[in-house]
Amino acid sequence: MTHTPRIHEVGLRDGLQVEKTVVPLEEKLRWAEGLMASGVDVVQLGSFVNPEKVPQMADTDALVRRVRELPGRPPGVRLSALVLNEKGLERALACGVELVCMGVSASETHSRKNTGMTPAEAQARIVPMARRALAEGLAVQASVQSAFGCGFEGAIPRQRVLELVKAYLDAGVRQVSLADTAGHAHPLQVEELYGAIRQLEPEVELACHFHNTYGLGLANCVAAWRAGVVSFEAAFGGLGGCPFTRVPAGNVCTEDLVHSFQRMGVRGDIDLERLLEVARQVQTFLGRELPGLVLKAGSIAAFAGAQR
Amino acid sequence: MTHTPRIHEVGLRDGLQVEKTVVPLEEKLRWAEGLMASGVDVVQLGSFVNPEKVPQMADTDALVRRVRELPGRPPGVRLSALVLNEKGLERALACGVELVCMGVSASETHSRKNTGMTPAEAQARIVPMARRALAEGLAVQASVQSAFGCGFEGAIPRQRVLELVKAYLDAGVRQVSLADTAGHAHPLQVEELYGAIRQLEPEVELACHFHNTYGLGLANCVAAWRAGVVSFEAAFGGLGGCPFTRVPAGNVCTEDLVHSFQRMGVRGDIDLERLLEVARQVQTFLGRELPGLVLKAGSIAAFAGAQR
Repeated sequence: MTHTPRIHEVGLRDGLQVEKTVVPLEEKLRWAEGLMASGVDVVQLGSFVNPEKVPQMADTDALVRRVRELPGRPPGVRLSALVLNEKGLERALACGVELVCMGVSASETHSRKNTGMTPAEAQARIVPMARRALAEGLAVQASVQSAFGCGFEGAIPRQRVLELVKAYLDAGVRQVSLADTAGHAHPLQVEELYGAIRQLEPEVELACHFHNTYGLGLANCVAAWRAGVVSFEAAFGGLGGCPFTRVPAGNVCTEDLVHSFQRMGVRGDIDLERLLEVARQVQTFLGRELPGLVLKAGSIAAFAGAQR
Repeated sequence: MTHTPRIHEVGLRDGLQVEKTVVPLEEKLRWAEGLMASGVDVVQLGSFVNPEKVPQMADTDALVRRVRELPGRPPGVRLSALVLNEKGLERALACGVELVCMGVSASETHSRKNTGMTPAEAQARIVPMARRALAEGLAVQASVQSAFGCGFEGAIPRQRVLELVKAYLDAGVRQVSLADTAGHAHPLQVEELYGAIRQLEPEVELACHFHNTYGLGLANCVAAWRAGVVSFEAAFGGLGGCPFTRVPAGNVCTEDLVHSFQRMGVRGDIDLERLLEVARQVQTFLGRELPGLVLKAGSIAAFAGAQR
């Protein structure tokens, strides 16, 4: 297995949505420009949620429009956003998002806390949205959250995850993501579960979203890559985490992930220094140290350069 | 590959040797008791170095003796220590260490900074010591430091590592460790290099020592386990790192590693809560937060319990 992994930068959404501070649009725009300039594949700009409930994401429409108008916007970078309901999908269509992400939780408790619905109810609302978005010509990624375990329920039956995935596939979705919302995943489980999905549908384009709660974030990414996963969600500086899980902890850190793939020789074209610059900007803005490790140590390449 | 990984706890040596504070013997003894009670396989108690140069390790002989005299000492836990020269080996023999660890760096620069000798010169001194220790009935683990890259030199030729390993094997050593002193290792390299050593000698008992400088510590441990590595060195709380590398950073954290192996279902008998207790004691003593993540988040098992 030596396919090229793709990076889906979700810091502007999954990183910022749990921050107390609302980041001004101009600042987000500056970070988005840096992310795009680095050469990551997809930049998630925000989430179409109720602006009163999540003010951090209230300017998502405006941000998408501003990014689309940027003169030097790199043509290869796609813009994504999270869509939670029909109204959000309308907003995504109106402002010109290119990839819409939607999902349900495999955990009954997590699903109820997050949406007020059971996983089945939530999926019954998601599937028509996915169909509509596909019909409108958007790329759609559908995810199963808490796919590897839940902070409230513990182990999640594998069959439940596969049933949710199957319903997506039946609806014509071909980009499927598993999210390790609580950070419970381990590498053997990761390979097994993605392998099972590929058995369901060999043509599926797999994505992953790991949290580093217990330190296995990068180990799970490596396992996922080996299991054929193509798209890797990560956030600048390792910021973020889910507010509806019991132990909030950071996303896999984009710079650490890109650095790892560079070291492994499977993805060398992303400008890591540019990513580090964004992470430092975020760090400065938030006024605290982020968990990213390359951010602390400096990249091996930069450092080898400094030795000459 | 489903063999049982063994844990070699090196916090009392590799964790403490770079601390400014000298930890009193009674405190070290308390931590050693906790580590042994947890059921880890080997506890490294210190290093036989010049007490004037490294006062943190000056009481290693006394600590070994005290631990050996403990009434409730679990019979299965072996005591190890690092030995750097002939005088250190005499001390190890005198106080009753059961496993002596010795090593050379594959990096010319790192070797010179650390020992004042080239790798070849350093190994020429190590090999007779290893033979002597084996003849005295001790278990011997010989290591190659900077085996996966060097902070000063960058990439280390694989052939140089294999030649050093071969010299150990020729001397009759059957426990061989590779240390990622600078944290440069990545999982593909780990599998490849350990695979090459097993080609040299299928009966070798492999050990690994990773640093988490760039976030790949646990990913490298998983890769090493898959490549047949049996013994995993790790330090409480993720403390430590090598003072002679350019970017000092923590060891793989024992609690995070044990938690990972628990989750993977390959090692479930170690008392993680006991290990966390030790890490908290160390944290309290040193007065700062350690990098370990399970230490912050709590273990999944403990936490599932709290949900009931």
